[in-house]
Amino acid sequence: MHSKYSGADHSRGYTYWERRRVGIVAKIVECIPNISEGRRPEVVEEVIAEVRKVPGVVLLDYSGNADHNRTVVTFTGEPEGVLEAAWRLIGKAAQLINLEEHRGAHPRLGATDVVPFVPVRDVSMEECVDMARSLGERVGRELKLPVYLYERAATRPERRNLAEVRRGEYEGLKESIKTEERKPDYGPSVLGTAGAVVIGARPPLVAFNVNLGTSDLGVAKAIAKAIRGSSGGFVYIKALGVNLAERGQVQVSMNMVDTQGTPLYRAMEFIKAEAAHYGVPVVGSEIVGLVPLEALLETAAYYLNLKEFSAEQVLEKRVFGF
Amino acid sequence: MHSKYSGADHSRGYTYWERRRVGIVAKIVECIPNISEGRRPEVVEEVIAEVRKVPGVVLLDYSGNADHNRTVVTFTGEPEGVLEAAWRLIGKAAQLINLEEHRGAHPRLGATDVVPFVPVRDVSMEECVDMARSLGERVGRELKLPVYLYERAATRPERRNLAEVRRGEYEGLKESIKTEERKPDYGPSVLGTAGAVVIGARPPLVAFNVNLGTSDLGVAKAIAKAIRGSSGGFVYIKALGVNLAERGQVQVSMNMVDTQGTPLYRAMEFIKAEAAHYGVPVVGSEIVGLVPLEALLETAAYYLNLKEFSAEQVLEKRVFGF
Repeated sequence: MHSKYSGADHSRGYTYWERRRVGIVAKIVECIPNISEGRRPEVVEEVIAEVRKVPGVVLLDYSGNADHNRTVVTFTGEPEGVLEAAWRLIGKAAQLINLEEHRGAHPRLGATDVVPFVPVRDVSMEECVDMARSLGERVGRELKLPVYLYERAATRPERRNLAEVRRGEYEGLKESIKTEERKPDYGPSVLGTAGAVVIGARPPLVAFNVNLGTSDLGVAKAIAKAIRGSSGGFVYIKALGVNLAERGQVQVSMNMVDTQGTPLYRAMEFIKAEAAHYGVPVVGSEIVGLVPLEALLETAAYYLNLKEFSAEQVLEKRVFGF
Repeated sequence: MHSKYSGADHSRGYTYWERRRVGIVAKIVECIPNISEGRRPEVVEEVIAEVRKVPGVVLLDYSGNADHNRTVVTFTGEPEGVLEAAWRLIGKAAQLINLEEHRGAHPRLGATDVVPFVPVRDVSMEECVDMARSLGERVGRELKLPVYLYERAATRPERRNLAEVRRGEYEGLKESIKTEERKPDYGPSVLGTAGAVVIGARPPLVAFNVNLGTSDLGVAKAIAKAIRGSSGGFVYIKALGVNLAERGQVQVSMNMVDTQGTPLYRAMEFIKAEAAHYGVPVVGSEIVGLVPLEALLETAAYYLNLKEFSAEQVLEKRVFGF
């Protein structure tokens, strides 16, 4: 269709700019601190109250686990508010949680164990790295807690990997923190009862599980080994083979740590092809928790073979301007 | 993971309710009037100015075509504002456009030829049907224009189909409007120079084109015939075979008039299978214009074989509350 003239008018109404003008949205960052308390709800509530105190920050979710003795907190907002909320949460957790008394199945270094910043909207990874460093500096200086930077904010290659930073846990770090290798990025080289805080920046993580029509756990384990970066597969996939005994199925359970680098559809097509070698069908999948819109749009575009598709073509994006 | 306790807090910040409280979004309807003017930009601008006058209504797009002598206007907002904007647009177009002088390739009955209401958010199809009837009644009563209700708002089965309502066009309707068969739903059974207005409600329409790796137009025509409802295919698909001479390809060009009823992935899989019978590959596709988010989420969920996926799992939906 030949278009002689065309235009649009976003100057009024509920567009992004309108919402920004009334101070409702702008740059949006997500923060997902993990605190080392999953058994005393009153302590968790007190820590979370600090997040609620910061105007403009929205608590999306918190979810505790008694076996892990750990709670995952999710909140979002503009960078300034998110930084303030993370700062307050770390301070309160350090007051209330004593690592000398903490027992739980999940590895941890401190009262606030890990604080990742994730870009959501109009924010670059570099800005999230800057946030991690700025928060780390303040925590080291004002709270006198040792801080390690990880993932995209890491200052040493071996600190990119969270598992590596947590090695030896709180108990082991009491001694090893004195070594040059374990010297914190900020704060003292001494561990108090609040332990250390690991702060960083990373892309949104997607928990993606694919179920296979067999009860043979060996098949899931072999495919998990083939797909995960640590054993030769895709660099941004972590994977395990899991038994779903009740269903008589097995599962390739994945953490997709960068769905721009390794998209969901590539994981799915790879697993389908590998499973076919065992004569095993893919019988279903699940996304646990949240997934960035882009990861799903790219999947739809891939399978529909769409050329030049843009997220701006999504009706809701145009209407609500998110 | 055993969840001992969990929660979320949407009472503050930029959630849906917050935005609603500050009056920015609530129920959202889309309206896509087509006016019979695509050659005189000054006339189009004057008509569109009426839409801009209504607070809270956002003009998303307008796009004119000189051959068709027609402009498609797209705006959104809450039902009340959208009704007012449509009303003003119809009135202005009736003043400025004379069907006695109108020539163009596209069939039309009136100055404002067709006005569909489309539910976007928190609005049912029934509410859009009510809007169509309320607007039609007012246009008939105050502007003294004949009004036909179509699609989901139709009062007779044969008026569901827009092409059927437009039969004979403006010129033919001058006489036939006097018959019982063509009696308008509202307004006089007399046609003035502004012609008649067709008003209705429908789901979002998706223009979805699939390109085939052959220059044989017969293949595209045969597949279009197989897929469209009018010749035995899917009830919510309209389709044509089109030649893409420059590329040496052909295209199945579709209007998907209800992607809940007939999803995008079903069209794609059907075309792939049919094309395979001719030994022809699908080499690409395109979505022209806007597409509802749900249609793409369902496509991603279908191909990833996701069970129990919910749009609430989309990070941006949680964060921006749209």
